[in-house]
Amino acid sequence: MQNRQWILASHPRGAADEATWTLIEAQRPTPGPGQILIRTQWLSVDPYMRGRISPSANYAKGVQIGEVMQGGGVGEVVASNHPAWKIGDIAESMDVGWQEWAVLTPDLPGASRVNKVDPGIAPPQASLSWLGMTGLTAYIGLLEIGRPRPGDTVVVSAASGAVGQLVGQIAKLAGARVVGIAGSDEKLAWCRTIGFDATINYKTADDPTSAIAAACPNGVNVFFDNTGGPIHDAVLKNLAVAARVVICGRIALADTFDQEDIGLRASSRLIVTRAMIQGLVVFDWWHRRDEALARLAAWHKSGAIQTKEDVLEGFERVPQAFLRMMAGQNFGKQLVRL
Amino acid sequence: MQNRQWILASHPRGAADEATWTLIEAQRPTPGPGQILIRTQWLSVDPYMRGRISPSANYAKGVQIGEVMQGGGVGEVVASNHPAWKIGDIAESMDVGWQEWAVLTPDLPGASRVNKVDPGIAPPQASLSWLGMTGLTAYIGLLEIGRPRPGDTVVVSAASGAVGQLVGQIAKLAGARVVGIAGSDEKLAWCRTIGFDATINYKTADDPTSAIAAACPNGVNVFFDNTGGPIHDAVLKNLAVAARVVICGRIALADTFDQEDIGLRASSRLIVTRAMIQGLVVFDWWHRRDEALARLAAWHKSGAIQTKEDVLEGFERVPQAFLRMMAGQNFGKQLVRL
Repeated sequence: MQNRQWILASHPRGAADEATWTLIEAQRPTPGPGQILIRTQWLSVDPYMRGRISPSANYAKGVQIGEVMQGGGVGEVVASNHPAWKIGDIAESMDVGWQEWAVLTPDLPGASRVNKVDPGIAPPQASLSWLGMTGLTAYIGLLEIGRPRPGDTVVVSAASGAVGQLVGQIAKLAGARVVGIAGSDEKLAWCRTIGFDATINYKTADDPTSAIAAACPNGVNVFFDNTGGPIHDAVLKNLAVAARVVICGRIALADTFDQEDIGLRASSRLIVTRAMIQGLVVFDWWHRRDEALARLAAWHKSGAIQTKEDVLEGFERVPQAFLRMMAGQNFGKQLVRL
Repeated sequence: MQNRQWILASHPRGAADEATWTLIEAQRPTPGPGQILIRTQWLSVDPYMRGRISPSANYAKGVQIGEVMQGGGVGEVVASNHPAWKIGDIAESMDVGWQEWAVLTPDLPGASRVNKVDPGIAPPQASLSWLGMTGLTAYIGLLEIGRPRPGDTVVVSAASGAVGQLVGQIAKLAGARVVGIAGSDEKLAWCRTIGFDATINYKTADDPTSAIAAACPNGVNVFFDNTGGPIHDAVLKNLAVAARVVICGRIALADTFDQEDIGLRASSRLIVTRAMIQGLVVFDWWHRRDEALARLAAWHKSGAIQTKEDVLEGFERVPQAFLRMMAGQNFGKQLVRL
């Protein structure tokens, strides 16, 4: 009755690597009162996890060395001590962790709650992607902080990524013109297929600031920033008056996670444009999850949003999946199928 | 019938100096239909003027070389072709400019309008200070962007300055705890006299970040930033969750006005704290002027707000007044009496 687990071996300084985690075999756990046991079927890797393995303080408690790596997953219920859950149900939770079997407590509040997956709406792994935290991030970040108006120009960095692809499509539904920034022509071709009006390859553009200016002749009204760093600076130089900037992630700076982020301060541009910049942590918005996911499910059913997954097979490849996502080598939402 | 004027001699690169302007004698102007002629009594110097003499684009049209320097002033009406204005009225306008006599057009909209000064409310020069643009900046910036709640900690940079002194006192009225940052113990003693709960001398503090942390044990909920630069960075390292940052000015960076502002990017702090940063240009809020000034006048009458002026005498000293304000040598609102 073994349970393979990836535990944190060290807090990385700079980039994480395969040695950051160690695969161990533990005893398969037993659910207590009010708990369920699941067999993990899918695991999600997400950029926020870089913060959870940092030794420095962040917005949530980090993983300690020797602990099972935190992470969302989907699994089939194999034992239940909870009246609302029966064997064979499909459960999704942020609290699964990188392990083959997990005990979950369905009645925990907020982001720790366990959600029942309805395979009639979408394949189960969608609950780790556009029909889960990822979708909520895009929906709230764009609509509540970015607040696009019809006719606005919305720029999305990491445009083909799990969040970026949704932001672009929701912005189109809101009547905006959408410009995507990513690091490969293949990714950008797909962005155009799903409705982006213009795209910029930051790796081949001679001057990103000029490229953004050319793609956004009336300036940038909303910037949904998943990358930080030089792309952030280049977009900020193109802000329109009264622009809104959503700081969702800074994956371009992942290798320097624990260092200070030195670059162009925004103050001058903010005064000239009277723009607003706000940081987003999706866990603040869990009370809006049901509303957002119902909307996303309807849009998906109607064909208004499409999504791309990038799946690695095998539990032993979870760290590899995380590292390729952090390096931008994935194309669409990075998942692992066990 | 001469009219002395300060005209722009050159666009400064870096700090402005006495050679930036030239004193000339022009013909005293004659008002046309719907216009009035005033004899200037008071002139205001304000940090926004640094932007108006820059050769680079800004949020408002700049002063060209050879043109009269823009600026707000107060004067007595000496000739009127406008039915609502009579000789002896006191007029305040952003459009006076650095000159001894000015033709004004009272019916222009927005910030160009001419306001009748009621000396029964306050001395006429107050309309260039707490009972004018300066007061509106503090009122709107704090209450509409900063949005202090009772119990919040509000930090103000350039705390004894024309705007800062008002922000601190309005924040107290809103139920906040107020911490002021300035560059002399004398200025900070006065801040405490008018109600600031704690003060920090950034010139003598060994480590501004630690000094702010000590003065703000629960973090900074609202930061009203008049300085930019290293003080900005030090406050941002102390933001509380869901903080609001008002970018009003960046006088600490005035000498590098046309250069890029390189320093600590805020993205990481914004994600961790879910804070919001927004730029303020008071001219966007002119529709709220009457409301704000009525409120400020009532507070002043009741003694709830006090203000300090720093007056230089003589038209020939206007550039000197501007330069000492930019260098932080003034103590309170910098004015020139003609």
